[in-house]
Amino acid sequence: MATCRAAARPIATNQQKADLLLKVKCFIFDCDGVIWLGDKVIEGVPETLDMLREMGKKVFFVTNNSTKSRAGYMSKFLSLGLDVKAEEIYSSSYAAAAYLESINFQKKVYVIGETGILEELDLKGISHLGGPSDADKKVTLKSGEFMDHAHDVGAVVVGFDRYVNYYKIQYATLCIRENPGCLFIATNRDAVTHLTDAQEWAGNGSMVGAIVGSTKREPIVVGKPSDFMLKNISASLGLAPDEICMVGDRLDTDIMFGKNGGLTTALVLSGVTTPEVLNSPDNKVSPDLVLNKLPDLLSIKAALVSA
Amino acid sequence: MATCRAAARPIATNQQKADLLLKVKCFIFDCDGVIWLGDKVIEGVPETLDMLREMGKKVFFVTNNSTKSRAGYMSKFLSLGLDVKAEEIYSSSYAAAAYLESINFQKKVYVIGETGILEELDLKGISHLGGPSDADKKVTLKSGEFMDHAHDVGAVVVGFDRYVNYYKIQYATLCIRENPGCLFIATNRDAVTHLTDAQEWAGNGSMVGAIVGSTKREPIVVGKPSDFMLKNISASLGLAPDEICMVGDRLDTDIMFGKNGGLTTALVLSGVTTPEVLNSPDNKVSPDLVLNKLPDLLSIKAALVSA
Repeated sequence: MATCRAAARPIATNQQKADLLLKVKCFIFDCDGVIWLGDKVIEGVPETLDMLREMGKKVFFVTNNSTKSRAGYMSKFLSLGLDVKAEEIYSSSYAAAAYLESINFQKKVYVIGETGILEELDLKGISHLGGPSDADKKVTLKSGEFMDHAHDVGAVVVGFDRYVNYYKIQYATLCIRENPGCLFIATNRDAVTHLTDAQEWAGNGSMVGAIVGSTKREPIVVGKPSDFMLKNISASLGLAPDEICMVGDRLDTDIMFGKNGGLTTALVLSGVTTPEVLNSPDNKVSPDLVLNKLPDLLSIKAALVSA
Repeated sequence: MATCRAAARPIATNQQKADLLLKVKCFIFDCDGVIWLGDKVIEGVPETLDMLREMGKKVFFVTNNSTKSRAGYMSKFLSLGLDVKAEEIYSSSYAAAAYLESINFQKKVYVIGETGILEELDLKGISHLGGPSDADKKVTLKSGEFMDHAHDVGAVVVGFDRYVNYYKIQYATLCIRENPGCLFIATNRDAVTHLTDAQEWAGNGSMVGAIVGSTKREPIVVGKPSDFMLKNISASLGLAPDEICMVGDRLDTDIMFGKNGGLTTALVLSGVTTPEVLNSPDNKVSPDLVLNKLPDLLSIKAALVSA
C-alpha cells in the first residue's frame, strides 16, 4: 500500500525566481547557513548580493547576537570578504535601541549585556548605566545591607552577558520592581547560541530567565522571533509585508518567523534543512520558494542576459 | 444596604486548641512572623515549643533558605535564644539532599549554590562538584573555546547563589542538556527573599530562571511550595497528612501549601496577615484554626492545670 505523502516541494524555476524579484523590494537574510557556513562565505553569495543591490533591492542581515553593535558586527562580514554597510545589519542590540526610539523613550536604561547594546543606545542618544562597567561588582549581604538604585531608570534591557553577576541581577530587579512603569526588554530569549565554533553555549535565555525569575514579569522581546524587527523595517521603508522576503535555512524559526509576519519566505537548502525534512509529512511549514542556495538567484541574471 | 460578607473567622477556643493537640502529632512552623519577627523571638514561643515537645509532638522549622545547612542554620536559632536540634530544621538545602536520597541517587551532583547544599550532600554521602569553588571562574569565548564537563553528573541542584556567574550557568546547562537523564533540581523558586533586613533581594528564582532559560527544562522543586517536604516528613514519621499541622502567617503560601498537602493548618496573626485580610470576601483560603500568635496554645496548659 502506498503511503500518502504531500507533494515534494521542488526547487524554484526561473519564472518563480523572476516573479519573486518583481514583487519583493527588500530581503532579510539569516546569516549562518544562508550567507556563510561556519567561517566560509557560500560561493556566489557576494555576486548575488551585488545583483540584488543593482536591482535596487534593500538587504538586511539579521542576527540575535547583541554583544556587538551594527558597526561592531561589520568586522565579521568584512573579514569574510563581504562588503556591507552598518545600516544593512539588523542586530538585536540595534533592535533594542530602535524599539526605545519607536516609543519615544526619554528616561535612562539599565543594561545587562555587552558593548553592542551600549553603542546602539549611544547612537540613538539614549542614556544608560550598567553593562560592562558592572562586571566586577560584588554584593556583600551583611546585616543592614541596602543596594541603592537609580529611580530614573525607565527600562532594563537584557542581552547576552558573559559577565552576568548577582549585582546586575539585583540592580535590574530593583529597577523593574520598584520604578513605576519600568520596561523589561529582552534582545532575545535564545536558549543556546554558537559563541564559539566548538560548542553551543548558554544564550540570552539565561540572562532573561534570571530577571523573569526575580520579577515574575515577562519581557518585551525585540529580536527574533518577535515581529518588532519586521514591523520596524517595513515601517521605515514604507513597504507592505509581502514586499519583504525572509530568507533562511530553518523552517521552524526563520520561515515561521517570516510567515507569522506576513512576509514572503524563501528557504535555502544550504544550511540545516534537508530536502527530506522539507518534504517530510511531519513538516507543516511551507515556504513560498525553495532554493538550493542563495546564489541560485544568479540564474535570473544569466537568463536576462541571454534573453 | 448591608454588604454580604462571609462569617468572620474567630480566634480558636480552648476546646478547638485541645482538639488540635489531640489530633496533631507533628507541627511544621514557618519561622518569620510565627517564631520570630525580624530579629526578635515572639514572647512565649520558647515556652510553647517546650510544651509541645513535652506533649511528645515533633516540631520542624522550615525555611526555603538553602545557603546554610541545617546545622549552619541552628546558629540563627541559638542566637535568638531558641534551643533547637539540627534535625528539627527543614531547610531547602536539606530537602535537596533528602530528595536525592529518596530516589537512591548514585551519581555526582553539580551545584549552583552555597555551602548549605554541599554540607547536606556530604551528610548523605552524595558526591558533588561546583558551588563556591566555581565562584571566581571566568569564561573566555575565543575561537575554538570548548568547556568540558563531567559526564557522570546525574543531577544539577540549583539554590540561591550570590556568586552565580556564566561559568556555572554554562556548566549546569551542559550537564542537563548533554548528560542523558540528568535531573534538574531547584531548592525553591522564590522571586525575592529577605537576605538583609533592609531590602528584598532577588531570590533563587533568578538562578533557577537562568537554567530554565538555557535548557528549556522545568526543575523538580523540593522546597516550598512543592509537597516533597511534606511527603518526606510524613513518610519518615509514619503519619497521616492530617496528623501534621502547618503553622504559618501567610494565607497564600503557608496555609495553601499545607492545605494542598492535606495537612491540618493553623494561621497565626502575628505576621503579615491581618484579621481584615483573613475575613475579607476576597480571601478564599480558610485555615482549620486561627491563633493571634503561637503562644495562644499555652492557654491549654493553664486550662489543664486549673481543671
